[in-house]
Amino acid sequence: MSELKSRIAQRMVAATLKAAREASLKPVAVAVYDARGALKAFQAEDGTSLRRGEIAMGKAYGAIALGVPSRTVGAMAVERPHFIAAASHIVDGPLVPAPGGVLIRDKRGALLGAVGVSGDLSDKDEAAALAGITAVGLAADAGT
Amino acid sequence: MSELKSRIAQRMVAATLKAAREASLKPVAVAVYDARGALKAFQAEDGTSLRRGEIAMGKAYGAIALGVPSRTVGAMAVERPHFIAAASHIVDGPLVPAPGGVLIRDKRGALLGAVGVSGDLSDKDEAAALAGITAVGLAADAGT
Amino acid sequence: MSELKSRIAQRMVAATLKAAREASLKPVAVAVYDARGALKAFQAEDGTSLRRGEIAMGKAYGAIALGVPSRTVGAMAVERPHFIAAASHIVDGPLVPAPGGVLIRDKRGALLGAVGVSGDLSDKDEAAALAGITAVGLAADAGT
Amino acid sequence: MSELKSRIAQRMVAATLKAAREASLKPVAVAVYDARGALKAFQAEDGTSLRRGEIAMGKAYGAIALGVPSRTVGAMAVERPHFIAAASHIVDGPLVPAPGGVLIRDKRGALLGAVGVSGDLSDKDEAAALAGITAVGLAADAGT
Repeated sequence: MSELKSRIAQRMVAATLKAAREASLKPVAVAVYDARGALKAFQAEDGTSLRRGEIAMGKAYGAIALGVPSRTVGAMAVERPHFIAAASHIVDGPLVPAPGGVLIRDKRGALLGAVGVSGDLSDKDEAAALAGITAVGLAADAGT
Repeated sequence: MSELKSRIAQRMVAATLKAAREASLKPVAVAVYDARGALKAFQAEDGTSLRRGEIAMGKAYGAIALGVPSRTVGAMAVERPHFIAAASHIVDGPLVPAPGGVLIRDKRGALLGAVGVSGDLSDKDEAAALAGITAVGLAADAGT
Repeated sequence: MSELKSRIAQRMVAATLKAAREASLKPVAVAVYDARGALKAFQAEDGTSLRRGEIAMGKAYGAIALGVPSRTVGAMAVERPHFIAAASHIVDGPLVPAPGGVLIRDKRGALLGAVGVSGDLSDKDEAAALAGITAVGLAADAGT
Repeated sequence: MSELKSRIAQRMVAATLKAAREASLKPVAVAVYDARGALKAFQAEDGTSLRRGEIAMGKAYGAIALGVPSRTVGAMAVERPHFIAAASHIVDGPLVPAPGGVLIRDKRGALLGAVGVSGDLSDKDEAAALAGITAVGLAADAGT
């Protein structure tokens, strides 16, 4: 399994926050996990609500747990709410079925981890996550 | 209680994986439980997502916990989502309301355990589980 | 409530990791929480074990939850193990009773949050957390 | 991160069970996890108690979660019971502080996963896990 370096994860957090400010998003929290589902880097902007960070974490961790972007998890939750409700009990971590959790892949397509963003509309959160991943030259998989 | 032998459980895992490869399924995880709800044998193919194994376990364990195939648990979840949501809290193990968790019965219809598969579309997962059970000469109950 | 700024939290993470490298600690994870018990900034160095980050979080969060440094939580756990065992169930977050979770206070003594470090011996983890807090000109309360 | 292949995990289970039979151990359960803390292969022999498998899982998963063999986790639990009691709440999976959970490393020392065995005395369980790892030409780290 390819490994996501701490230094790269930190750069993705900074690039994601830079994109969020440039797009004038509401205050966001951003979480970067590696392929093990271990948190590598995180930052919450000033003004984020008490558990906003957990929502960002749940977008990224849930994506890694199920192997699909959180946008796809959200679509699954619309089609089969009972399945995602059940999955949220058994993935041993937070799972948020909404856009903003984007998978990070290397050039060969191997999973490196995921970036999760929460604070504004889910589509805007996702755009910031995408910007953070591409800023470090890695491939972003946000689903369709 | 009829007993599912470890050797038979292992043969069901191998036969299920063989069927999954012959049908070109995406990478799957397969779990075989006995009638007590104890895991007897498990294998996850390379390329399965971080928590794919827990989903396979939840199809099999949930089927044993409620005494019906996971396809039926899924139908119950559509008709009575609140009931399955509550049940998922109280069964002391994972419960996944989707096809792919098939009950194993002996010739007299006595429950021996269940096979759970996850990785591709639920119907394809279920077909692999069925193949794994019939390969060892036992009766499969997938619900209707 | 005094507010711990995101920018300051990020600087504390960087200063803590700088101190950890200068002291040649094993790979560490560092978590910075604000006074609400909300994660503000986090980074895990390469080579940290799968759940090392949760231990760092539990030193910082547990300190805020009980209002004392994690060194004191550890002393309480030795004197009254049953109390800390119970507390760990009810604080709605991770609690780790070992040195390395240091409270952050402003000049007037008001609580701003906590820094948690895990990776090496608890005393070394604590020294890195202390260095991270003092590097930004805030007061560190590690207990005695 | 190096990856533990499913085929190798299955061979480790078979070799572990072979060693357990040759040493006439009581019925055992064996679990093999990869470095992500995802179960790759598992088998429980006939005659194992209802939750014996979970104990084997907790020896292997706990070792990966904390980055040390379960023998070391056990030593930590004797020295600092409150710390391991707290850790068992926060590692997002089972943790068993007793010998029998052995880390798997590649030639360069990179962590590949862990094998957990439970059923007889912990030292005997550990010997079976060691035999299972060395049988496939990988390095076993059982602690000292």
